[in-house]
Amino acid sequence: MNRSTFEFVKLQGLGNDYVFIDCLDRPLPPDPSDLARRVSDRHFGVGSDGLIAVLPGERASLRMRMWNADGSEGEMCGNGLRGFAKYVFERGYVGDHAFDVETKAGVLRPEVLVEDGRVARVRVDMGRPRFERGSLPMAGAPDAPCIDETLSLGGAEVQVTCVSMGNPHCILFVDDVATAPVTTLGPAIEIDPTFPRRVNVSFVAARGPRELHMRVWERGSGETLACGTGACAAAVAAALTGRAERSVVVHLPGGPLEIEWSDHVLMTGPTVEVFRGVFFDPK
Amino acid sequence: MNRSTFEFVKLQGLGNDYVFIDCLDRPLPPDPSDLARRVSDRHFGVGSDGLIAVLPGERASLRMRMWNADGSEGEMCGNGLRGFAKYVFERGYVGDHAFDVETKAGVLRPEVLVEDGRVARVRVDMGRPRFERGSLPMAGAPDAPCIDETLSLGGAEVQVTCVSMGNPHCILFVDDVATAPVTTLGPAIEIDPTFPRRVNVSFVAARGPRELHMRVWERGSGETLACGTGACAAAVAAALTGRAERSVVVHLPGGPLEIEWSDHVLMTGPTVEVFRGVFFDPK
Repeated sequence: MNRSTFEFVKLQGLGNDYVFIDCLDRPLPPDPSDLARRVSDRHFGVGSDGLIAVLPGERASLRMRMWNADGSEGEMCGNGLRGFAKYVFERGYVGDHAFDVETKAGVLRPEVLVEDGRVARVRVDMGRPRFERGSLPMAGAPDAPCIDETLSLGGAEVQVTCVSMGNPHCILFVDDVATAPVTTLGPAIEIDPTFPRRVNVSFVAARGPRELHMRVWERGSGETLACGTGACAAAVAAALTGRAERSVVVHLPGGPLEIEWSDHVLMTGPTVEVFRGVFFDPK
Repeated sequence: MNRSTFEFVKLQGLGNDYVFIDCLDRPLPPDPSDLARRVSDRHFGVGSDGLIAVLPGERASLRMRMWNADGSEGEMCGNGLRGFAKYVFERGYVGDHAFDVETKAGVLRPEVLVEDGRVARVRVDMGRPRFERGSLPMAGAPDAPCIDETLSLGGAEVQVTCVSMGNPHCILFVDDVATAPVTTLGPAIEIDPTFPRRVNVSFVAARGPRELHMRVWERGSGETLACGTGACAAAVAAALTGRAERSVVVHLPGGPLEIEWSDHVLMTGPTVEVFRGVFFDPK
């Protein structure tokens, strides 16, 4: 009975799920990295993709810190930030619908969209896409973009568009995502020497001018339920190559994201409070 | 905000984790099979191996029903029953340390072991082992046991002992479980025609007369953190072939189980309350 206990809330966005702990009125636990590993364990802990702490900030009134399930501290995560925005808005920690949040990736400004008194969706500014090969990075002339180019990648001849959203994306347009070679060609392209820091690989099908379907092979993670930057890159690539308009809904296995690209890319997606509880920390 | 909510407790035994709902004072939800699927989802739900309901019984004062993560109703589960025993004892639903529980596998009688006012471990009578090939079933003379026999199974010549604990087990003794071919030979033996209803395959190393280490390939599930009947079968096989005494600790990847075989097999193992909370059912 000397186990410590603490309250938490679990939120997910597109199936990417985090345990949130509130550290506004109490200190951050002494070893959050170790706690993230314990709490994230899906059989012996609460089970999550990571731990997110709600903290007072220095450059903004609120600060988000996140640790992945392996204990490493992450810079930012779109799905996590949407959950953070819902959490702090619904508890009255902020008054405006748009507000600054300090993260390791800088100060970001999510905007909550309220339905029936609850935050159902959150819009996040994902910044500007970049197209020069050097920005990904990608072999070839550093200033030249790669738009609908046919290249030999991962042992296949493929037509690809490459986009940096801060991280590198290689987009292949296909007729049907259900039959796309995500788990075979995805890992082969991921490690192709054309991308010296590897690459995220998206298989995208346009369904009319305002709807995309996609599956993504994430660098270092394999196929995932959703990838926010991948959805942004796919929408940008589709608009750039005339396959869709600049405002689209992107359907991922974990759910839909709305992407608007004017100058910056705005991403709007769902966030859901799944459960809240008390964790009996085994440590 | 028209989502239904309900309270739950999450318990795990050797990493086998269940969401418990208390239906003594309220009715069982109308579609527990569907609820089990939603609640068990590890990204969109609470996350578990299944759902267990605490119910009033007819043949005993308490009844346990369980549904697997795929919505199928299970007959019984040793790890789940230990959690059930802890749950009902700590809430004062029973007064004695040993008590009857009605299950789909009949009335069972767990006994709780209390430390510092909490149920830390639970002992369960797992019944009598059987050795005749017909009891598994297994090809060959139905009355003949298979004890330390060298057979051609899964494409290899292996020495095995076969035990039924109500379900079929094939035990291979090895020098080191870390290097045992669990994920290659396990599935090959599982589907060998020698076992017409397939078989659970355990790789077991004796470490002195009272300690076994094991890894198990579970029929239909692959390698798992723990298998209670497999640990019983391994202990019985080790005692029967002179590799260990009749009272041993079996170390599984998910943790230790104490097994005593006199006539019946008694299994004593841990159970832990991990967290409790309120689930916001998306349905």
